[in-house]
Amino acid sequence: MTQATVMMAEMTWPEFAACLEHDPIVFLPTGMLEQHGPHLPMGVDHLLPTAIAAMIARDVDGIVAPPLNYGYKSMPRTGGGPSFPGSTGLDGATLSATVRDVIREFARHGVRRVCVIDGHFENRWFLNEGIDLAMREVGDTGLRVMCLQHWDFLTQETLDDVFTDGYPGIELEHAAVLETSLMLHFHPELVRTDRIPDNAPMDAPPYDIWPACKEWVPETGALTSAAQASAEKGALMAAQYRRDMTAAVQRELLS
Amino acid sequence: MTQATVMMAEMTWPEFAACLEHDPIVFLPTGMLEQHGPHLPMGVDHLLPTAIAAMIARDVDGIVAPPLNYGYKSMPRTGGGPSFPGSTGLDGATLSATVRDVIREFARHGVRRVCVIDGHFENRWFLNEGIDLAMREVGDTGLRVMCLQHWDFLTQETLDDVFTDGYPGIELEHAAVLETSLMLHFHPELVRTDRIPDNAPMDAPPYDIWPACKEWVPETGALTSAAQASAEKGALMAAQYRRDMTAAVQRELLS
Amino acid sequence: MTQATVMMAEMTWPEFAACLEHDPIVFLPTGMLEQHGPHLPMGVDHLLPTAIAAMIARDVDGIVAPPLNYGYKSMPRTGGGPSFPGSTGLDGATLSATVRDVIREFARHGVRRVCVIDGHFENRWFLNEGIDLAMREVGDTGLRVMCLQHWDFLTQETLDDVFTDGYPGIELEHAAVLETSLMLHFHPELVRTDRIPDNAPMDAPPYDIWPACKEWVPETGALTSAAQASAEKGALMAAQYRRDMTAAVQRELLS
Amino acid sequence: MTQATVMMAEMTWPEFAACLEHDPIVFLPTGMLEQHGPHLPMGVDHLLPTAIAAMIARDVDGIVAPPLNYGYKSMPRTGGGPSFPGSTGLDGATLSATVRDVIREFARHGVRRVCVIDGHFENRWFLNEGIDLAMREVGDTGLRVMCLQHWDFLTQETLDDVFTDGYPGIELEHAAVLETSLMLHFHPELVRTDRIPDNAPMDAPPYDIWPACKEWVPETGALTSAAQASAEKGALMAAQYRRDMTAAVQRELLS
Amino acid sequence: MTQATVMMAEMTWPEFAACLEHDPIVFLPTGMLEQHGPHLPMGVDHLLPTAIAAMIARDVDGIVAPPLNYGYKSMPRTGGGPSFPGSTGLDGATLSATVRDVIREFARHGVRRVCVIDGHFENRWFLNEGIDLAMREVGDTGLRVMCLQHWDFLTQETLDDVFTDGYPGIELEHAAVLETSLMLHFHPELVRTDRIPDNAPMDAPPYDIWPACKEWVPETGALTSAAQASAEKGALMAAQYRRDMTAAVQRELLS
Amino acid sequence: MTQATVMMAEMTWPEFAACLEHDPIVFLPTGMLEQHGPHLPMGVDHLLPTAIAAMIARDVDGIVAPPLNYGYKSMPRTGGGPSFPGSTGLDGATLSATVRDVIREFARHGVRRVCVIDGHFENRWFLNEGIDLAMREVGDTGLRVMCLQHWDFLTQETLDDVFTDGYPGIELEHAAVLETSLMLHFHPELVRTDRIPDNAPMDAPPYDIWPACKEWVPETGALTSAAQASAEKGALMAAQYRRDMTAAVQRELLS
Repeated sequence: MTQATVMMAEMTWPEFAACLEHDPIVFLPTGMLEQHGPHLPMGVDHLLPTAIAAMIARDVDGIVAPPLNYGYKSMPRTGGGPSFPGSTGLDGATLSATVRDVIREFARHGVRRVCVIDGHFENRWFLNEGIDLAMREVGDTGLRVMCLQHWDFLTQETLDDVFTDGYPGIELEHAAVLETSLMLHFHPELVRTDRIPDNAPMDAPPYDIWPACKEWVPETGALTSAAQASAEKGALMAAQYRRDMTAAVQRELLS
Repeated sequence: MTQATVMMAEMTWPEFAACLEHDPIVFLPTGMLEQHGPHLPMGVDHLLPTAIAAMIARDVDGIVAPPLNYGYKSMPRTGGGPSFPGSTGLDGATLSATVRDVIREFARHGVRRVCVIDGHFENRWFLNEGIDLAMREVGDTGLRVMCLQHWDFLTQETLDDVFTDGYPGIELEHAAVLETSLMLHFHPELVRTDRIPDNAPMDAPPYDIWPACKEWVPETGALTSAAQASAEKGALMAAQYRRDMTAAVQRELLS
Repeated sequence: MTQATVMMAEMTWPEFAACLEHDPIVFLPTGMLEQHGPHLPMGVDHLLPTAIAAMIARDVDGIVAPPLNYGYKSMPRTGGGPSFPGSTGLDGATLSATVRDVIREFARHGVRRVCVIDGHFENRWFLNEGIDLAMREVGDTGLRVMCLQHWDFLTQETLDDVFTDGYPGIELEHAAVLETSLMLHFHPELVRTDRIPDNAPMDAPPYDIWPACKEWVPETGALTSAAQASAEKGALMAAQYRRDMTAAVQRELLS
Repeated sequence: MTQATVMMAEMTWPEFAACLEHDPIVFLPTGMLEQHGPHLPMGVDHLLPTAIAAMIARDVDGIVAPPLNYGYKSMPRTGGGPSFPGSTGLDGATLSATVRDVIREFARHGVRRVCVIDGHFENRWFLNEGIDLAMREVGDTGLRVMCLQHWDFLTQETLDDVFTDGYPGIELEHAAVLETSLMLHFHPELVRTDRIPDNAPMDAPPYDIWPACKEWVPETGALTSAAQASAEKGALMAAQYRRDMTAAVQRELLS
Repeated sequence: MTQATVMMAEMTWPEFAACLEHDPIVFLPTGMLEQHGPHLPMGVDHLLPTAIAAMIARDVDGIVAPPLNYGYKSMPRTGGGPSFPGSTGLDGATLSATVRDVIREFARHGVRRVCVIDGHFENRWFLNEGIDLAMREVGDTGLRVMCLQHWDFLTQETLDDVFTDGYPGIELEHAAVLETSLMLHFHPELVRTDRIPDNAPMDAPPYDIWPACKEWVPETGALTSAAQASAEKGALMAAQYRRDMTAAVQRELLS
Repeated sequence: MTQATVMMAEMTWPEFAACLEHDPIVFLPTGMLEQHGPHLPMGVDHLLPTAIAAMIARDVDGIVAPPLNYGYKSMPRTGGGPSFPGSTGLDGATLSATVRDVIREFARHGVRRVCVIDGHFENRWFLNEGIDLAMREVGDTGLRVMCLQHWDFLTQETLDDVFTDGYPGIELEHAAVLETSLMLHFHPELVRTDRIPDNAPMDAPPYDIWPACKEWVPETGALTSAAQASAEKGALMAAQYRRDMTAAVQRELLS
């Protein structure tokens, strides 16, 4: 192996130590093991942020830490909920503690710029909390942490190009056009193209109920149709991510 | 993609649901992001158990859950300790909580046979605790969980073949002949063969000290020489693992 | 005092015991102590859900438990963030534990229908988690819990009537038209009408940063203009809440 | 609203910020939702400390933070125990964490003088712990915290005036003369004067038992007779509280 | 060793198993490592309950589990506070968790009658909480737990005999007549009789302050004079304990 | 009592304060309440480290803190497992928290040298974690902590003398020659010499299983024969411990 990798798990420690000298951004991809319809693998939520992080890291000479493969519990309105076989959720405090510990350790290594890239809607607040707990422990050392969910970067222009029939909103975009297109771009070998669902969108009420209402969720697990997905749309989104996330991390973390 | 995978993160949920019907063993690989000398990548401790789990799972029609990429803190006497750049340890309670949550969720899916395969010496007791906490919560449902550290399966015969100068014991085998040979077998592209260290073994006292004594540890991070490592030895160990772990999980979990 | 109250804190225990016999819905209002611009009191987030809960409870013969006056940490993009004097956030685990404990106790009293009404955007996921933890502990006893953030009930028709220039989305509606109008309806004596702000909307990027970026937030603390607020609009929203929340809790909890 | 309020939840953030400039005492009332006999509302334990705190705050130019409405579990010997409908106790760690978080946040705002006023006997040690945890986190910043249970301020002279037949001790004074008189003074509209109980005092042994012994507790929930309660006695106690608590907080926190 | 012991730590497992057959009461002594004046050892708070438990256990054919040697933090008004060298307090949650775990394990062994005997005033509520958490986890299995602080058993008659000048109340009895007399009875070899203090009683205000006010506490650490202590008084108290605690545990736990 | 003690629980606070002036090593013995065969008392794991600590402390002018009498859960392969009556294990987080709290308090007293001496194999990693958490909280104050399990100090020479038939390894030495000999040396009155077991060694597989496999463990609870134990061997080991532990603590903590 002669060419450099951005993946921290593939680096030796002297290679990582050498990287540290130029004060790199360390990307932490966070995901979930969760149903993603009949056509996408259950690892989508860590596969996409890892791929996106690698793409950005190569541009900014950064490092991609190993992903967190498990995330917060799936909710019916945003991921189909716990009743789908395989959706494997952590307690909120467990996820927050993991993020806290990992960032605390990065800071101990001398890392001062961290970017958490998340691929699972339900993770957001527990990631926020983990980061906040780490910041409190680490104190005033110059550490800066950025946290994003990749779809929030999509511009209106991109959404118009991708969702020619209108963007249903991120909550319905579970296992639908957005994720399917990105998987067709980044991991086409993992998409069961013959099983891409074309179901009607979920019509859920504006609240949550426990025990979870399985009946709200389309049987496929896709919260709306993925029929309009394509690798081209995935490439389009990826290109915009590359342009705008790179700009954002440079603006926020390298200045 | 037409051929079946054993990797849970690559399965769709209907594929996982179909697997569940034959009451499969679910393997959970657990690792660490930690220095492994100048020649091995920092992800060794999740890469090896994942590869071993996949090998066994194919034989027993099992499933490999996504690995835990982060583990308990490195200690000087067994992994070089926290002072090496990149060794990124979780608090013990964080690791135990993650294992507890994941097993609790597997049980909720109807899984009744779990085998945790660990690749990081320091993880053992926090894995034990996580499993114990899950068992307490899950109650008397027939769930059985097995937990192993792969090197404990090596027979005297294998050790004699691999360590022709004598087995230094697993604690010194960090980033040395055992792990290097297995990496040369499973992930040769990730081994920097030109940097395999040949340092003298660590000579540490029979106790631990805080703050950690960096001076005890060889500068390379390998706790003894890895010079005798080879892909052939890795293949030999892997073959014995395959034979004996397969037998063990069948005896304990499928009977 | 001769007339009946719906407020649990104002009931004697025999009165509460008598209520329990008809299997009532218990409403739990959850809020936050947080800046709400120069014109609204810092208790808005518990005052509004408490008022709304009382309104619904009277219709469905329910009970309003005392509110949780403190909530999860304010974030810049949704509440102005921690830098405003007075914004007093709990750790996520603290809030979840409180919700878990309170619901566990309600269930112990024999309550089987709980509706959490939240007034603080950042609370949502920690409320979810607290409810989920309670459900796990309580087990399969018939307990049903509903959780809502009041603004999610606003229909397009109401939004069109209230936001004649277009709805900026709930994230910007902090201390703006929505909350100001509802306060003018429910607690006019607490609104400093002479200081209703008319600042431009916040223009924040699609991610969060730690330490928090105070610069993103309008100086007033209102994330957009509240100038179009009125008691009439508040009454309109309250009326729609009354109609639709009452219907929802009857459909989900009384059937 | 033109006149100044001492209630933090009713202040705007600029008003609170203005208060902070004169280094005010912030009072934190802590209570419980708990049975208080057939005549007092279940919110007594937060209502009284809130009223007392407001009385003192007006004298010392202080601020009253919103109360904690839920407290530690009721015990039979001091509050009747968990078997009364409505007595809704938090786990000890939950209460301590809430107090810790709130004080940590006050300190972050620049508050240096905090006075916790408690109205629920069982809260005391978990409040202590929460304060201690906050002090440890906040470190040596000049923060001072005082914690009191209001009845501990009653002088022998007041007790002689109020309890003409002798003071039974605070543990028996649950829902009896002390609390009933104070409620008749501060919240007469919430007292069911026609149901003031006149039962014999509880005769409990000098230990606790789990599961809780409901049989020890008088059926009314009042641990002794409240028949001698009056608004005049309440006024007398309130006046002494005002004199002595004001002196104490000035001596301890303003010097 | 031929004669039977009541001390669980001195039993072999078959001896303990034999005891279990007659459904014994298991006593758990709980203490603290804390200053007890210039004349008493810092282990008083576990030494006394252990001795008392052994005395009662011999009468009721019970078992004495090993004591918890560390307890909750010393407070100035009841134990002198944290500023005395050697006063070594646990966090409240740590103590509660230990009690919870130990009782949960006893229940797992088949123990159905537990009596916690405490010797440290500040422990009480964290013991309560630990017991309550254990009861919740163990569920409805017939387990009964009693918890007492030994001095609460002293009758007025005993107090009159021991405190000929009047009982100052348990809070002042730290390292004073009560504890000194009992130590002279149970562990005379550990009392420095030449250093028994005769200081005036502490005159502390009716509240607590953080940071702790060292100035409130007599310099000796004894909260009032111990000069009237004697072995005879210790014997008197011990005899009454024996009579009344034996009766109480038989009444509550053996019926 | 005229002669000085090294036992902290037997010291008065002024005696402890005087010791602190010469910057002593404080030893913390950690144990377990656990089956130790038909011949040894269940307290072996705290009795031995306490005796060893006292022996070393007398040589180095140190102090022995009261032992932790309860430890981490027994595992079948190393202590017989949870199914033996009396084996009373703490959750891992409880043990770690206790160690953290005690060391944090020692540091607050001004102690800068701590040596944890453990007698229960399963404790090791939870002690490590407790120490690490304490170090993180205490920060960079010069505190040094050493942690050892006593048997790790046995030299090959001693092992050759004691185990004339070969050392079976520490994991099998539960309740066998090593512990029995040391108990015959330190606490002969607690050994049932007529019941010393002579069973064959446990033959357990190289992994753990939950629920625990009771069948792996010899019925006696001794994991191998204790027949070759003698007080002389105990004295031999104790003498070597004295020589080498004293040297180690002086080298590591007094330099």
